[in-house]
Amino acid sequence: MAASPAPRYALGLDFGTESARALLVDLADGREVATAVHPYPHGVVDTVLPGADIRLEPDWALQDPDDYWACLEVIIPAVLQASGAAPEAVAGIGVDFTACTLVPAAADGAPLSRDPALRGQPHAWAKLWKHHGAQPEAERINALASERGEAFLQRYGGKTSSEWLLAKAWQFLDEAPELYARADRLIEAGDWLVWQLTGQESRSACQAGYKGMWSRADGYPSQDFLSALHPGLGGLVEEKLGTEVLPVGARAGELTKAAAARLGLRPGIPVGVSIIDAHAAVPAAGVSEPGKMLLILGTSGCHLVLGRDGKAFEGIAGVVQDGILPGFFGYEAGQPATGDILAWYTRHGVPAEYQQEAERRGVSVHQVLVERAAALRPGETGLLALDWWNGNRSVLMDADLSGVLIGLTLDTRPEDIYRALIEGTAFGTRKILENFTANGVAIDEIIAGGGLAERNELLMQVYADVTGRPLRIVRSGQACALGAAILGAVAAGSTGGGYDDLAEAVARMGGVKERAYTPNAQAHAVYSALYAEWDRLHDYFGRGENNVLKKLRSLRLPE
Amino acid sequence: MAASPAPRYALGLDFGTESARALLVDLADGREVATAVHPYPHGVVDTVLPGADIRLEPDWALQDPDDYWACLEVIIPAVLQASGAAPEAVAGIGVDFTACTLVPAAADGAPLSRDPALRGQPHAWAKLWKHHGAQPEAERINALASERGEAFLQRYGGKTSSEWLLAKAWQFLDEAPELYARADRLIEAGDWLVWQLTGQESRSACQAGYKGMWSRADGYPSQDFLSALHPGLGGLVEEKLGTEVLPVGARAGELTKAAAARLGLRPGIPVGVSIIDAHAAVPAAGVSEPGKMLLILGTSGCHLVLGRDGKAFEGIAGVVQDGILPGFFGYEAGQPATGDILAWYTRHGVPAEYQQEAERRGVSVHQVLVERAAALRPGETGLLALDWWNGNRSVLMDADLSGVLIGLTLDTRPEDIYRALIEGTAFGTRKILENFTANGVAIDEIIAGGGLAERNELLMQVYADVTGRPLRIVRSGQACALGAAILGAVAAGSTGGGYDDLAEAVARMGGVKERAYTPNAQAHAVYSALYAEWDRLHDYFGRGENNVLKKLRSLRLPE
Repeated sequence: MAASPAPRYALGLDFGTESARALLVDLADGREVATAVHPYPHGVVDTVLPGADIRLEPDWALQDPDDYWACLEVIIPAVLQASGAAPEAVAGIGVDFTACTLVPAAADGAPLSRDPALRGQPHAWAKLWKHHGAQPEAERINALASERGEAFLQRYGGKTSSEWLLAKAWQFLDEAPELYARADRLIEAGDWLVWQLTGQESRSACQAGYKGMWSRADGYPSQDFLSALHPGLGGLVEEKLGTEVLPVGARAGELTKAAAARLGLRPGIPVGVSIIDAHAAVPAAGVSEPGKMLLILGTSGCHLVLGRDGKAFEGIAGVVQDGILPGFFGYEAGQPATGDILAWYTRHGVPAEYQQEAERRGVSVHQVLVERAAALRPGETGLLALDWWNGNRSVLMDADLSGVLIGLTLDTRPEDIYRALIEGTAFGTRKILENFTANGVAIDEIIAGGGLAERNELLMQVYADVTGRPLRIVRSGQACALGAAILGAVAAGSTGGGYDDLAEAVARMGGVKERAYTPNAQAHAVYSALYAEWDRLHDYFGRGENNVLKKLRSLRLPE
Repeated sequence: MAASPAPRYALGLDFGTESARALLVDLADGREVATAVHPYPHGVVDTVLPGADIRLEPDWALQDPDDYWACLEVIIPAVLQASGAAPEAVAGIGVDFTACTLVPAAADGAPLSRDPALRGQPHAWAKLWKHHGAQPEAERINALASERGEAFLQRYGGKTSSEWLLAKAWQFLDEAPELYARADRLIEAGDWLVWQLTGQESRSACQAGYKGMWSRADGYPSQDFLSALHPGLGGLVEEKLGTEVLPVGARAGELTKAAAARLGLRPGIPVGVSIIDAHAAVPAAGVSEPGKMLLILGTSGCHLVLGRDGKAFEGIAGVVQDGILPGFFGYEAGQPATGDILAWYTRHGVPAEYQQEAERRGVSVHQVLVERAAALRPGETGLLALDWWNGNRSVLMDADLSGVLIGLTLDTRPEDIYRALIEGTAFGTRKILENFTANGVAIDEIIAGGGLAERNELLMQVYADVTGRPLRIVRSGQACALGAAILGAVAAGSTGGGYDDLAEAVARMGGVKERAYTPNAQAHAVYSALYAEWDRLHDYFGRGENNVLKKLRSLRLPE
């Protein structure tokens, strides 16, 4: 018998909204050896419940937890085969997942939706992060927490969302109390998946902290508060969540024999505590200390910063001890629309001639607009935009705000508007950055990831010029999966062929691309003048001096 | 020899930007018997001077006065032939014309451009109303008039334009002093045409009052003021304009034998004093007394109201005694972009699918947008627009303002924006209306004319709902020409088969269509709430509380 090969790889498992990805990376340098993606067999269940004649309400979004496992049985063998790696060469496994995606399960981990007797009930399925059916519950949670002065509310900028665990759990209890009672466990899908791999339940500080209102110091919201919401929620923590929460970077357990057999891996591989997908990009970006902001630019914008202290201040969407990397407080802020605004504009605001040019040249409409807009100087558009097309989640934390575009003339062209929209989102990021700085969380450099950062060079340069900070791009195009793999390498530890020190793992395996977007001093000066105007309008329309945006929203509905 | 037929018709001659129109109407009831249109042979000269290798600057716009006459020789015979009317059946002729369109002429009326020795010089040609080459002169005129507290400035809302006579004359003097000296007369094209018809020069109170800074009480600006602008301008009034100014509705003279022969008409037909084209629509709309606002909706908006007193107040573009109808002060206000904003939007802001639908259905893009926008309730768009795409010419009188659009969301659709733009222009008209009312010029009803009023039913209903006034549409689709014909009928007088009393002529020959757009009380209430928000933003962005729009404009230019 040949000797087992030395462990050389870490395996990152990345669970997104539509599909799961496996990424096999080299422990030494983070080199991506093989990757495989597979869509969830049932996709996002948001119209009709599969196998049942039940139509879902429009704000629902469910998934089948067994789809997650079904994907693993495809993608893990696929990366092993593609790389030629022996199962023994995998040192550790990490998992990132959307959140809060909430699985109702039996005590043994079996999802309720697996039970044929329950499968016809929507509440038996996993509620996906973007399930928005719990809006009334979220509003009551915010109101009561605010009324009672609950301390946890401050850690989330004064407001929690219908996407979070408590609202989803309460909707479950409200609408299907008997089934709720049968759910022994309510568990984040990331934690549930780790449970399936290791055979033991664990909870991640990342999901619990950012989506479950948990903190290292205070735990979950009190039983008193939960009972005040609804008597049936009083036992939620003890009965369905559990109180032990592990820091990101810790080992959750080892791969069971059964799981190893099904996936073609070796039993006993260490598995790391799960992390939210966006947050996994932080280690992938090479960030393991304060001073750098990870800016994930996709449909929305997400800003992640490590701090040595945990301060609750206006404008942060969450601050969680050990929530991103162990030993730090992870701060999160966000813009609820970034790429979405540009997508809205290219879909609804760009005339046929631009679309025809794009078709003729075989490029995207974005590309046509980027080229034309890149030829403009800062300030040349004459336009200024408040980027609130989907509300504000920064210092104003107000979903009822809407977008503002000023300076329009008969000479305004689509590329002017496109550039102004990019600039508007960049001003929004500058506001977030300055808010961190003003509250003692310094940021010297921005590292961007996500689709927009990869594709839109104009946007990157504008962000550098507006913020006055150099911007670099996460090296990996699969940053979430790479981040998960890094956590797998740390779970393995040096004795298992990985790393004991997370900072070392990050330095070796994560990182940025060579190209940096450097702020142009002259452009920064013009943008600073524009930002002063932007900031004044931000306060005028956003802080109650003129509530016209809210009045407009209220008039949209019939009386 | 058969007896001459009794005069039955009035002839209106309407000179627009691109073409001239003749309209033969029945004296008894204004019925339109025949019409003919002919484009100016040289069109609008705005790139290269015909017959010369001279390229014009981009803000220039010239015409050949001989084109006006050339058109008459086509269109007058055409309407006589089409109607079968004998030349003797024409009782009177009226003329409306763009203004200020300024013809430099010799003492005998021959335009300088007719002289082959001068034809190669741009300044020898007529400067069309939209010639904007005199912007520096206009700015110096405004500055000096303001500095000296010249009373005339108040009659024009504190500002005069580069389109006006004095600025154009001064540019002429500045740039071609020798040619300027050879121009014995500088005369509005409408007055020049009447001169060609009657053989005697006359000046209309309409053109002189609205575009020449003349008033019945004070005459033209003083020699002292003109000399202060430029010593060479001191003699402008005495030497090139003349001081006699006739009220609209008066007879300017009778058709000469020579003119009659060339046009196929009878010599001696009375010819009325000329009027500006837009203003001619007032009698055509059946308006001959205060209380009704004529709203001309084209690329821009023009608001005309008759008053018994002449007051100078903020927000009027001009007030002229006898300038529209004799015995009244004619007030003018305006919005510098109305149809232009909608045209800008359909050209630059509407996606391919809307354009494709329009093509498939064989309708305009406007029509597709109107249908979709008409299905929305007031307030449903969630949007609010300040209609300053081309500045403001109402109470703010500020060309440096620009458009504002607020309330945008990811759900905003093109029809929302289209409707919001219509509503924004309607709010602009309401502001003008309320300004008149606040200054003692009451308005009970609005009569609309122009292309937009004819074509865009949604816009008409929105204007009725926003203003709370019933809206009717000028009956004639050729209102300017009809108004000119009415003035021809009055020039003829009752002894000539026409009318002595202008009000009677207006009542018989002018009027509105049967269909009225009645304000809906509920819609008006919603729009009043929106207008209050609009008005607040109007003052915020327009009156100096936040000068961001001007700062944005200044940043458009490179430093």
